[in-house]
This record gives sequence, structure tokens and C-alpha cells, in this order.
Amino acid sequence: MGKCLFTMGYSFKNDYSEGAHPRVLEALTRTNAEQTDGYGTDDYCARARERVRTLCNAPKADVHFLVGGTQANMTVIAASLRPHQAVLAAHTGHICVHETGAIEATGHKAVGLASLDGRLSPKAAAEALAAHPDEHMVQPKMVYISDTTEIGTTYTLGQLEELSAFCRSNGLWLYLDGARLAMALADGRSGVTLPDLARLCDVFTIGGTKCGALFGEAVVITNDALKPDFRYHIKQRGGMLAKGRLLGLQFEALLADNLYTELGAHANAMGRRLRDLFTENDYPMMSDSLTNQQFAVLPDRLIEALRAADYRFELQMRVDETHCAMRFLTSWATPEAAVEQFADDFLRLARQCGA
Amino acid sequence: MGKCLFTMGYSFKNDYSEGAHPRVLEALTRTNAEQTDGYGTDDYCARARERVRTLCNAPKADVHFLVGGTQANMTVIAASLRPHQAVLAAHTGHICVHETGAIEATGHKAVGLASLDGRLSPKAAAEALAAHPDEHMVQPKMVYISDTTEIGTTYTLGQLEELSAFCRSNGLWLYLDGARLAMALADGRSGVTLPDLARLCDVFTIGGTKCGALFGEAVVITNDALKPDFRYHIKQRGGMLAKGRLLGLQFEALLADNLYTELGAHANAMGRRLRDLFTENDYPMMSDSLTNQQFAVLPDRLIEALRAADYRFELQMRVDETHCAMRFLTSWATPEAAVEQFADDFLRLARQCGA
Amino acid sequence: MGKCLFTMGYSFKNDYSEGAHPRVLEALTRTNAEQTDGYGTDDYCARARERVRTLCNAPKADVHFLVGGTQANMTVIAASLRPHQAVLAAHTGHICVHETGAIEATGHKAVGLASLDGRLSPKAAAEALAAHPDEHMVQPKMVYISDTTEIGTTYTLGQLEELSAFCRSNGLWLYLDGARLAMALADGRSGVTLPDLARLCDVFTIGGTKCGALFGEAVVITNDALKPDFRYHIKQRGGMLAKGRLLGLQFEALLADNLYTELGAHANAMGRRLRDLFTENDYPMMSDSLTNQQFAVLPDRLIEALRAADYRFELQMRVDETHCAMRFLTSWATPEAAVEQFADDFLRLARQCGA
Amino acid sequence: MGKCLFTMGYSFKNDYSEGAHPRVLEALTRTNAEQTDGYGTDDYCARARERVRTLCNAPKADVHFLVGGTQANMTVIAASLRPHQAVLAAHTGHICVHETGAIEATGHKAVGLASLDGRLSPKAAAEALAAHPDEHMVQPKMVYISDTTEIGTTYTLGQLEELSAFCRSNGLWLYLDGARLAMALADGRSGVTLPDLARLCDVFTIGGTKCGALFGEAVVITNDALKPDFRYHIKQRGGMLAKGRLLGLQFEALLADNLYTELGAHANAMGRRLRDLFTENDYPMMSDSLTNQQFAVLPDRLIEALRAADYRFELQMRVDETHCAMRFLTSWATPEAAVEQFADDFLRLARQCGA
Repeated sequence: MGKCLFTMGYSFKNDYSEGAHPRVLEALTRTNAEQTDGYGTDDYCARARERVRTLCNAPKADVHFLVGGTQANMTVIAASLRPHQAVLAAHTGHICVHETGAIEATGHKAVGLASLDGRLSPKAAAEALAAHPDEHMVQPKMVYISDTTEIGTTYTLGQLEELSAFCRSNGLWLYLDGARLAMALADGRSGVTLPDLARLCDVFTIGGTKCGALFGEAVVITNDALKPDFRYHIKQRGGMLAKGRLLGLQFEALLADNLYTELGAHANAMGRRLRDLFTENDYPMMSDSLTNQQFAVLPDRLIEALRAADYRFELQMRVDETHCAMRFLTSWATPEAAVEQFADDFLRLARQCGA
Repeated sequence: MGKCLFTMGYSFKNDYSEGAHPRVLEALTRTNAEQTDGYGTDDYCARARERVRTLCNAPKADVHFLVGGTQANMTVIAASLRPHQAVLAAHTGHICVHETGAIEATGHKAVGLASLDGRLSPKAAAEALAAHPDEHMVQPKMVYISDTTEIGTTYTLGQLEELSAFCRSNGLWLYLDGARLAMALADGRSGVTLPDLARLCDVFTIGGTKCGALFGEAVVITNDALKPDFRYHIKQRGGMLAKGRLLGLQFEALLADNLYTELGAHANAMGRRLRDLFTENDYPMMSDSLTNQQFAVLPDRLIEALRAADYRFELQMRVDETHCAMRFLTSWATPEAAVEQFADDFLRLARQCGA
Repeated sequence: MGKCLFTMGYSFKNDYSEGAHPRVLEALTRTNAEQTDGYGTDDYCARARERVRTLCNAPKADVHFLVGGTQANMTVIAASLRPHQAVLAAHTGHICVHETGAIEATGHKAVGLASLDGRLSPKAAAEALAAHPDEHMVQPKMVYISDTTEIGTTYTLGQLEELSAFCRSNGLWLYLDGARLAMALADGRSGVTLPDLARLCDVFTIGGTKCGALFGEAVVITNDALKPDFRYHIKQRGGMLAKGRLLGLQFEALLADNLYTELGAHANAMGRRLRDLFTENDYPMMSDSLTNQQFAVLPDRLIEALRAADYRFELQMRVDETHCAMRFLTSWATPEAAVEQFADDFLRLARQCGA
Repeated sequence: MGKCLFTMGYSFKNDYSEGAHPRVLEALTRTNAEQTDGYGTDDYCARARERVRTLCNAPKADVHFLVGGTQANMTVIAASLRPHQAVLAAHTGHICVHETGAIEATGHKAVGLASLDGRLSPKAAAEALAAHPDEHMVQPKMVYISDTTEIGTTYTLGQLEELSAFCRSNGLWLYLDGARLAMALADGRSGVTLPDLARLCDVFTIGGTKCGALFGEAVVITNDALKPDFRYHIKQRGGMLAKGRLLGLQFEALLADNLYTELGAHANAMGRRLRDLFTENDYPMMSDSLTNQQFAVLPDRLIEALRAADYRFELQMRVDETHCAMRFLTSWATPEAAVEQFADDFLRLARQCGA
């Protein structure tokens, strides 16, 4: 599908540039004329929920489908905390930076903790607990992590187990934002599975928007304490889709026949191809990512040349007067041919501008 | 499309039971593989925005696309008010009843005013202003109305003009929730057009979810005071769709070739067919609706019989020990054949149970 | 103390016109130079808390001292509810009318229920529960009542017991706002005691501001579920007084030697003297109050004459073209002589204007 | 007054350990029996407001009196910002640390900026603006500073002028929290006066609680844009004191005859006496404070010995395995004799424990 697009350059700006995987779109089209009950009470949602429970080996989990990631984060966090409680997150965490204060707008402080690799460690969480000893400060009650993180890294099973144990022994809920969970599950190094998440987290999401769906995030609640009345919270935060079946249908398609992890694996493979291109040519990488987000430090001249050739990608940060770290994202939809042509163009342009 | 469905009964429970109009679905399918920028910054959204401005004769209006109605209401209201300000609404208004306190969750009181016909009158608003004279009470600052109302009635042009004048002379914003605007525009009695709304309201919505789209509400802001930073509010409230083009595409399709009002007219025609059925057989109606929401007072025995025949519709309220007011909704997707067969079955069952 | 004031007219506008009872002021003066720890952790607060527990026969109650009534209401309610939950109150309840949306500003809907006598009945609460069946609406979780009510009426022990039983069987917290509790406890008809409140409510306040203190409301929490972390909520809502001992000292003084109920009894006696004056001269009363709030329907001419004589009191509502209901408040500080002179002046002015 | 207290040790834990300056208490006692209107509408408040305007050379300033500092901060900030806007503050700022998320509870993010000396610099603010470029992040709109800062430092007039100019050229409100303003005004190095604050800030507070009052903070609003409806915000946040005259009376007394700055100067003089004691004996200080907050690095053994002698003071932070930085606060009420005896005991105990 990328052919014609590709002749006009290619966008590595994000992993939600395209629509949905064809199987998802087919499901929506096939069922379009059916009448179903609203707000997620239909049979498609019921089947998708059951599918999530099975894949997670969590027969008692509550599963809800929401439209978007910020919506899911603010709904989960606001539903879980009492007014004086706060959520801990890496300072690079999505809720700390890129959600326009959505968490604060529900009344809660998101405490950003320093992190070099995008992960939140038990040590950082322990220091935060020590710094919040009494009622003159907010009370940390939840730990928010994202997997993959905002810089493409992932948690190993050991890291997740250690963090989960820390949270449980300190009365903290562990919430994992899986906006890019397909890529995390497909990262060979992490060894994390859906049943692991169900076992180690109190609540987590399975992202659809960036992993093959038109939109949609599945919220999986495994801790009984967080289950009551969650549909009230979805509705109150504006997240209850009238034609809720659209969400059930999409997740049903994605979670069938291993499609979800295959899409993650493809996105990662395309990302690693870019990583190899950069590292083999001695461009430094800003993050130890083996997933679909790659951050390469490139000379400004080369960046200009790539943009002139109509490639699109985003600035992560300026590194020095002549170099910037640029963010390249691949996705489930990135054609291999697009990456190969980019590689050719990249090497040619690098030679031309002597960079 | 209704044929096979129809043999298994038909649902008049709501007007969001089906998917999208085929032209909408076709647009989504046709463009599925394209890459576009995210969050509503793509060309489809730009074109849809321009289309709205043209249809509203409001070249300077700001237009934003959100996913759902509660989301649109809470975003518009929270963006418009300072913390101590309140919104006035008919006590039947959607924000007062069916949004799980979404407005209050943003910190604002929704003051419900008594209304017999679902409309909010300048007289009721004036009384509310008089009852809120000083800083010990909330300060009314916005009037919320819905058109069609939650009981199917509509505002005439004269009523809207009077209410708009009242709001302007009292420093109140006028916000019209157009979740069912297609039906209001198609109601022959009202005489209201999109340019009228742009002229008389400070902000209003054009509903997609109940009028042919998979989902989507267009927010049209005509008052300059309400325009700044609205995208921040959308993002903060969880309403900024990553693949924003999905919204632009749908509105582009709906607003082309008069499709939007045609769908509203069809929904209304089906509703009036039901109304005629009820009134011609001397069943009382609870609302003076000529649109797609009809509220008929039926004997319990007949309700049971209809349900046994697999027709679905909702209870509005119990009227006496043997009668209930039932809500019947038609939609853009309701097949004429379904209504005709319902009429046949209704008359037959009424005879059988002597009701 | 009223003598010189009285020659310049007297104010019946409210029951917080004066400072504190002399014993309260003496305690503040006597201890002024002492050093104590801040934020209510001092010995005076500890003793006052213990005194409250003893008087309430509630040795395990948590007791907190806050500065004002709105502050206490918003802190208690926000601390008790999850985001989607609402508080039920008589539509005349202080939180529904006179707190500038303070409850809504914490994110919660206050659902106002019709009430003729200022009280909230189990029947009204039951109807509200029935009207809020599912997640599309807020979930009622707390019942707010005030005793005395905002129109001077009180709950009998039987009424409180019935309401408490209803709340417990329906999973609702019962919260009693005792801003004028001294007057309620002193109302001979009610038969309610502090141990009754501790037994029947989940949380209630003992008002100081209107009952002899400079300021201060004691929050008494008897339900274990509402106790955790309450000091966090006080601090977060801005209610934690740095020199917290000022509150402990005042309540210690008020709750010693029966002073609190004596002050309530005096305020009531002054109120009944006014009531007798009005009713014996055939002026209708708008409320069945035997406490310190009296609402008399007076002719406009007489109202004018009283104001010309420099008496001050507030308009409750216009009754017809020539009559208004006026609110007269007495307090712990109202001198008997002031009431007697008012009675003389009232009768003389009534004769003069033939009203 | 300190004599008897002193034989039982002395508390340097905070600057709100005692009651009020005798002149304040005298004013409260003298007027106790008077009747006045409520909620700050009385003549005492009117006179105190006028006194503030005169002292600030700001005849058009709006002046409001609130009970406490957290209350003032949350009311000012919530009243000034739209929902998506944030306040910038030094990471040590009171709103970032010690207010239990009160700002977040009103829906706003407080963005903490690194600061070594407790001050917020234009450079740090500029970097924060650069890091918040678009609608995916909160929008910085207010700068919060405290003077004296939380570590006893003060802003020079030049620093304030530079920061004010930066704020004005970037559309940011400048808010100065003057909880310890008496000490800042009395710091000979700063050269800042009340008219300077009125000229350079958009809103600031004049602290009473820590400067001679029982309680009370005056909010001074000089920017017209922040004036409308401020009393609504006070009421909504629970900060409108029924017997508002208590605040007016206290500020009238404090602002007469230069008492306020004299109290600040005394507190500072006592603080500097402690500083001299520490520095002359080669104990390092953690902050360049010349005001009433002093942070000395002391050996653990000496800390133990001082505590055994019944001196009270708080831990600021552990420095190494054998040393801690301790916080010593003096106040308007600290007797010179108490400081001198502490100095004697300190030197004696230091010798004894060889520290």
C-alpha cells in the first residue's frame, strides 16, 4: 500500500498516521448495518472482553474499552485515587508532559521522578515516598509506567516484578500505560507477556490506536479494589462511546490469530532497521530502544537534506550547535520498501552533505 | 439493509444502534492507507472545517471536531466558565441528567430549571438570574439548550432569537447542544438554519453520532471570546483524537450534497409515521415532538405483547398503574419497511390484547 | 453589653454579628504568649477533642477543628465521595444555595430535593435513589442535612432515627451540618442529644461560629470508613489553621460547664420571644421554628417603619404586593433588653402605621 | 513573656507558635461586643483595606482578607487561571511542596523549576516557556514567588524588577506570596517596599499569621484583569470568614504605627543573632538567609544534646552520616533573653560533646 505514498516521501513522524489494519476495517464494514445496544453493552464488546481475559489468563479481570490514551489515563487515575493522593511517574511519562494537565484537571498531582531511560525504578519510587511523609504533602498512592516507554525502552520481566513487589509492599497501585504495548510484547529482550501484566499490575491498558486500530484502548483491571463503578468514571470523563461496539469489534479483530503481536513485531522490525542504519554509520542513538521509536543524533545539514527530500520526522531535542536528536517512528503500517528507500536516500544524502 | 434484521424484530431503543451512513464508511475505507498528521491538523479536517463555515455563513467561526457529546459538552462548558460560574439548563437537559456529573466534575454547577416542554425560556432564565444575586451563590454565565430537546421538541426561530437577545443583554453565553441537530434542522415547524445558529449562539455543536457518522460532534465557536486556546481544552479533557482525520472525513461526507439534513428528514419522517400510528389510534403522546423521538402512553399489556414480538424500546416513565410512557426512536438508518411492519404488528397486537 | 448598642437600634440580621463569649475570649487572652505546636497538634486541641468524645459518648470518634462552615462542608463531602458520587440535600440546604458552588468545585453534584420544612425525608431520598439507577447518572452516596435547618426547624429524634436507618440500609453516608447545633440541641421538641448524633450519623459538625466562638466548627467522624487521612483533606482544602490551638481553646471553653447548650437555649429563648410577639399579634410565620431563626410575614409599611427606627433584619422573600417574609435572627449574644425594646417599638410602630 | 517558658526550653520550630501581638489582641477584645455585618463588609475591614492601599501607594488596588496562606494561594491561583493554564514556581515553593496538592485540587499544574536559592529567575521561567510550546502541554500563565522564600532568602528590588519585566513581556501574571513579607520588607539588603510590590506584581499577599496576627493574609490585587468577582472565589474556596471583622481589626492594628515592619525587623534580628552564633563557631549555613529562617549544619551529637536540653527545632535534611541541616525559626515574639540563653547553652553543649 505504501508505493504511491512513498514517491512523495514518507512520514516517520508518528505511529498513528494511517487508518486501521484491513482486518479491523473489514469488521467495521461487515457489521455496519447491524443494530446493537449502546455504550459497550453489545455482544462484540462482550466477546472482546472475554478474549482479553483469556489472553491475560485473568478470568476475573474487568475489561473496558475507551477511545484514547489520555482519556484512559485520566479515567483510570481519577477513579483510583482519593483527592489527596498523587501518582508517581518518570518525568518523561506521558501524563507528566503531553496530556495538557489532564491528571491535574481531575485534581491530582502527578509527581515526576528523574529517569534517564524512561523507566521508573523502585529506588526512585522509594525516594519519593520518603519525601512525602505527612499530611502537608500529597500522598503517593499510584505508580504510573508506560511500556514501551516514551523513548522506546521496555521493562524486563525482572524489572516489572521488582517494581510490582515494591508497590505491593508499600500500598501503591501499579498502573501500566500500554499505548504501545504491542511493541513491548514483541520486544524479544523484555520477556513480558499479557499474563505477566495481569499478575503484576493492578490495572493496565492494551493500546489499539498505535497498534492497528482506528482508535481504542482496552483498560484491564485485575485488582478488585479498583473495579467498582468504573463505568461511571468512563461516562463522567466523557469516554463512553455511544456506538461502543466499534471498540469491541476492533479489539476482537486485533486479538484474533495473534494479529496484535504480529503488528508490534513488524513495527519493531522496521524500527530496528532504522536503528541499524544509524548505528552502522556511526550516528549516536539517544535511547537504548529496540522498538518502533528511534532517536538518532544527526547533523543539521543532513536533517535539512532529508526534509528537502520530503521525509518527515520530529525534533526530540537540540544536542549542540550543529546536531539534533531526531525522533523516527515506524508502525504496523510502515512498508518495508519505504524503510529501504529511506536507507538508500539517507546514505546518499549523508555522502552529499559530507555528514 | 433492514430485511434480515427485521425478521428478528426491530430496535427503537435509540438512534445510535447502527454504524455509519455508507458514504461515510466509504470515505474512511478509501483513505485508510494514507498518512496524515495527527490531532486534527490534517487536510480532511481543514476541508471539513471550511465546509462548516460556509454552510453556517460564518467565515470566522472556529470549528473543532470531538468524538462524543458528553465530551463536547464538558469541554465547551469548562472552557467557557470561570470557576465560580454556572450553566443554566432545562432540568431535563442532557447535562443535568445523563452525563454522570461530567459538568460538576469540571467544577461547575449545572442549575436545572423547570421546563414542561424540554425548552428553556427567557422567563425561566430571568428568574434564575434573580435568584443568584451575589457572591454567596454561583454566578450564572451560560445558558445550555439542546435542539432537538431531550423530548424531541425543537426551538422555533422566534424562540431562539428571543433567548439569544435575552442572553446578550444579560451577559450570558448561549450554547446549543446539537447532538440531534439534523433532526432539528429538518423539522419544518422550526424554521431554523445553520446560519441562524451561527448568528444567535455563541457556540453550538453539529452532531454526527446520531446523524449518520460512526461518531463525532463538530463544535462551532462564533463568539471571539470563547475561541482562544480551545485546543488545549480538548486535549486536557481527553477529547483530542490521535487519528483526527477520522472526524474530518466523516463530517466532509455528511455535509456534502445535503446528506446531513436528508438523514435528519428521514429520521423525522419515520418518527412521524410512528406518531401518526399512535395518535390515530388514540394513544396519548407525552411530548409535542415531530422529530425522531416519540413518547407514547401505552397500556402495559400492549407493551408486553410488543416486547414478546421482539420489538425493543425504552421506558420513559410510569404514568399510572396500568400505563407507561414509552420512548420510540427512529434514525437515519431506520428502514421504512421496519416501521410499516411495526405498524401492522402494533395494530394486530393491540386488537389481540384489547388495548 | 447591649445597652449602648441598643440606643442605636439593633441588628437581627444574623447570629454572627458579635465576637466571642467572654469565656472564650478569656481563654485566648490568657494563653496568648504560650508556645504550642501548630496545625492542631497541641494539647488544647487534644483536650477539646477528648471533651467532644466524652460528650458524644463516642470514645473512638475522630474529631477535627476547622475554621468555617463552608470549609467544613466541602472538606467532609469531598473526603467522603468518589468522583462519580453525589450528595443529596434539601433544595434549601446550605450546600445547594449559599456556598457558591463549593461542593461542585470539588467535582461533586449536590442534588437538591424538594422540601417544605427544610428537612430531608427518607421518602425524598428514596425517590432520588430511584431516579439515579445507572452509570449515566451520578451515584447518590451521601445525605446532607442541617440541624437546625436553614429555616429554623429541627429534626426530632424519631426523624433522625428513621433517616439514619434508611441511609444505612441503602449504603448512604449521613452527614449532619451542625452550624447551629447548639440551638437544635436546646430545642425542647427535638429530644436529640450529642450521643444520638454520634450514634445515628456517620459524620457531623458542632458549630462554634454561630454559638459563642469567634470561629470554628468541630467535625466529628464516627464511621471508621470516613476517618483515614482526613487531615490531608483539611490541608488540601485550605482549612488547616497554623495556630490550630485557637480552635482547641475555643471549643474547650464552649464545651465546659454546659456553656454550649446554655448559649443555644438563650438564642432560642430570644427567638421564641420574637415569635410570640409576631404570632400574638396575628402576623403569620413562614416556618414552624422554635429556635433562633424566625420568619414573619409583615406589611411593607411596618417593615419600612422598623428600618427607619434603625432595626436591621433581612428579606427572606416577597409574599405579595404589600407583604414580605422577613428573617429575624437572635443569638447567644442578644440581650433580653434589646428584644424587649424591639417588642415595644414594634407594637408602637404597628399601631402608628395601622398595620 | 518568655521567662517562665524559657526555663522549660524554647521552641525554634516555627514562627506561629504564639498567639497575637498584644495590640492585635487588645483590638479584638475591645470590640468584642459590637455588632457588625458579616463576611468582610464591616467598617474595620474597610479601614484596613484603605490602610493597605495607602501603604502600597495603590489607591485602586482591591484588597481582600483571608484566614490562611494555603487558602490564599489556592484562591488567587484558581481565580487567575483558565483550566489549561499552569503556575510556575521554584521547586521549593510552598505550593509545590507543602500544600498537599491544593493547587492541583483546583485543577492546575504547579510546574516546579529547579532553584538553588529559593528564588525563581527569569532564566528558569524562560526555559519553562520554551518547554511548553503547544496544546499538548499545559500553558504557563502565572509565576509564583515567595518573599522571603521558603529558605529565608529575599528578592532584591533589581531581581523583582527584572522578573516583573519578564512576566509582562511574556503575558504571565506575577504573584508574590508574602506569608513572611514583614521579614522581607525588613531585610536591609532587599530594598523592596510595599509600593514596589504593588507596582511590580499583579497580585501579592501581606502575611499576618507569621507576623503578629492570630491569623490572616491580605490579598492585594493591582492588575485590573484579576479583580472581577474575587469575592466569589473566596466564598467558593471556603475562605470567607463569617466574622470578617476579625481580619480587618487585626490588619488595622498591625499596619498602624509601623508595627508590621517592626515585628519583621525583630524576627530578623533574632534570626541573625542565631546566624552569627553558628557562623562565628564555624558551623556551615545552608542558605544565604539574613531573615528569621536559619539553616545550620550541625553534628548529630550536638543536635541530640540541644534536644535533651529541651530546645525544639526541625530537621531540614540529612547532610552526611553524622551531620544534619536543622531549621531554626525566630519570630516577632521571640524574646531576646531566649536567644541569649540558647547561645550560652549551645556553646556549652558544643564544648561538652566536642562538636
